[in-house]
Amino acid sequence: MKLVIPASAESWVDAVQVSDFPIQNLPTSVVDSHLGRVLAVRIGDFALLMDEKLMPDQVDAHGRAIRAKAYELLSDSSSALAKDNALKRSNLVPIQEVQPVVDPSTIPAFVDFYSGIYHATNVGKMFRPENAPLLPNYKSVPIAYNGRSTSLIGSDAPIFRPKGQVKPADGPPEYVPTRELDFELEFGYFLAGGNPRGSCLAPDAAEAQITGFVLVNDWSARDVQRWEYQPLGPFLAKSFATSISEWRVHPDAIELFRLNGIEQDPAPLPHLATSGRQHYDIHLEVWLQSAEMTSPQRICHSNTKHLYWSFAQQIAHQASNGTPIVPGELYATGTISGPDEGMFGSMLELSWRGSRPITLHETGELRTFLLDGDTVIFRGWAQGEGYRVGFGELRNTVVGS
Amino acid sequence: MKLVIPASAESWVDAVQVSDFPIQNLPTSVVDSHLGRVLAVRIGDFALLMDEKLMPDQVDAHGRAIRAKAYELLSDSSSALAKDNALKRSNLVPIQEVQPVVDPSTIPAFVDFYSGIYHATNVGKMFRPENAPLLPNYKSVPIAYNGRSTSLIGSDAPIFRPKGQVKPADGPPEYVPTRELDFELEFGYFLAGGNPRGSCLAPDAAEAQITGFVLVNDWSARDVQRWEYQPLGPFLAKSFATSISEWRVHPDAIELFRLNGIEQDPAPLPHLATSGRQHYDIHLEVWLQSAEMTSPQRICHSNTKHLYWSFAQQIAHQASNGTPIVPGELYATGTISGPDEGMFGSMLELSWRGSRPITLHETGELRTFLLDGDTVIFRGWAQGEGYRVGFGELRNTVVGS
Repeated sequence: MKLVIPASAESWVDAVQVSDFPIQNLPTSVVDSHLGRVLAVRIGDFALLMDEKLMPDQVDAHGRAIRAKAYELLSDSSSALAKDNALKRSNLVPIQEVQPVVDPSTIPAFVDFYSGIYHATNVGKMFRPENAPLLPNYKSVPIAYNGRSTSLIGSDAPIFRPKGQVKPADGPPEYVPTRELDFELEFGYFLAGGNPRGSCLAPDAAEAQITGFVLVNDWSARDVQRWEYQPLGPFLAKSFATSISEWRVHPDAIELFRLNGIEQDPAPLPHLATSGRQHYDIHLEVWLQSAEMTSPQRICHSNTKHLYWSFAQQIAHQASNGTPIVPGELYATGTISGPDEGMFGSMLELSWRGSRPITLHETGELRTFLLDGDTVIFRGWAQGEGYRVGFGELRNTVVGS
Repeated sequence: MKLVIPASAESWVDAVQVSDFPIQNLPTSVVDSHLGRVLAVRIGDFALLMDEKLMPDQVDAHGRAIRAKAYELLSDSSSALAKDNALKRSNLVPIQEVQPVVDPSTIPAFVDFYSGIYHATNVGKMFRPENAPLLPNYKSVPIAYNGRSTSLIGSDAPIFRPKGQVKPADGPPEYVPTRELDFELEFGYFLAGGNPRGSCLAPDAAEAQITGFVLVNDWSARDVQRWEYQPLGPFLAKSFATSISEWRVHPDAIELFRLNGIEQDPAPLPHLATSGRQHYDIHLEVWLQSAEMTSPQRICHSNTKHLYWSFAQQIAHQASNGTPIVPGELYATGTISGPDEGMFGSMLELSWRGSRPITLHETGELRTFLLDGDTVIFRGWAQGEGYRVGFGELRNTVVGS
């Protein structure tokens, strides 16, 4: 059963309602801690270490029992945790004392969709100006490609500027550090598993497999992508790094923020048909700070509601050929741009293919693509009445190669 | 140090020199057996179960110590195994008594290249007849895409005909069982790992990471592929199943069959430059048997020497953006067609996009793409003097959905 924690709920842990991680959120991450590598639940600026002393007797594939246990321990001021100072000292530790872990060996697949319709439209306008911006299959097929899960990293991991093959307009191909390093503002989710091989999933059953949401930065090398992507799609232009926020927000924590998405016309084929509020109102932001700047500047604000295909439809599409979905797979949405210029989720779009540099106001620097020393910060949250369910920061800095 | 077993070597195990698995081969597979799930070495029609009684004291990431130990046990007629009837009964078992295992959870990535230049040429002729058959990047970039490792299966696993979205020329898209089910004749290899994140691999160091070779059938749904692949490449058209032969042939076992490949013109960029015999003379065959036939018919013969890019170059390309290669990754070559019609490695090419059905002589049946009940069999071997180093059979039957 879903655990939707009401806006009125409070925690006895100090000052958490003003953070991304109030009692309504309770996201999880594996962390390295003084108790070893354990699953933790985040509350405000603390991590609750769910070792054997705190784990519920029975756990489920969707993480509900753990979240319910954490809710009980953290909301009731007379809980076993609240009353026991020794237990609090050992298991409720300041966030600075743990290191969240992104371990690709626990993520058997990374799939990246292309469901941001304004992004797809912008790309079409830039690269196929003579045609309709959206390809004919866009509103029929939730387009996606298989990414590379071994390159998944967490917040604060450096982004080494990759080398790659590029083809200058006026010369032969060369193997050089990319000159068009970019971010992509995406949203992602982990899955509990699902269908056995040869069987499919209806959208509702598909959505029920989601165990947690994260922010995703699908780092891209545009010049490499341009030269390599025909005919089999992006490969090395994307696989050098994909960073994700570490605290996985449970679907129950954003249940109250559902909304109807963009109207789908034509109607999806029956196996992708859904009804009701299949999308979410999650505000997203991108901030950029150069090595010269003392504080970051917001360069994009967007929202997951700008996705054309819902998560349920993405997963149902994946399973529609009978490929088995196994526990721990990570799916991302594709770049989520909004309809207006301040809402574009990549430097490619913000600088309109390099033709319109953006200005960093503090220093007067200009940017088309990312330079060494640039830090890219993603933020995201669902805004409730007097609280927010947030994703923290996904922050990575570009390092020269 | 490489263990190249001379043509003159023999085993005391009966009648193995006439099989794919003589003493010169000694491939490995994980198998389920009366001793549980163990690593096995194949010799003729027997599996040598390498449990703790037989395992060498030290093993290496490339499997050389295990192969050397098996060679010692199986070649020397006074070895500890040869002399011990109880040990022979428990650890040298008829192949029918073990079940080789393909466990996708041990394969963290599946990457599929497009290095068969005759296949790429045929596809270009069929789909872009107005242009040069090869795209401009083909001889510069070892084109590849990320596949889906969770769908990897072994020989004898059924191929469920997948459903998918297709777009008839004269109507709207529909979600139906594919009408253009195809095989792709490929060759593949597993890797020991390699570069840490942010660093690259030279081709020689890259090739040294190969731990074993297998036959690969990259099952494909051509009608699905046609509708979905723009702009991000093949996705569901490929991910419903990829089958591999289970007995992994060690690179040392095919060391004697090296040859120079197709001349590369223009010369590859320096980071992909190689010298010497980077390719292998491995004969490949495809056989097809319909439900009506009593024996299969050979429909294709080819050779790994028809690859444009060598394995060393493929791996070096993968690592060239700094993505870490981790133990157990599987890379496949792409379809290996030869230059002549009898050498085409897919029904797409054999039937020239469905326009020239092939005839199954025993029954007079015609085939453009695969029908339910069709069994596709891949075979492959390197031919030595009086022996062959083979891959056994990769055999799968299409089942209606």
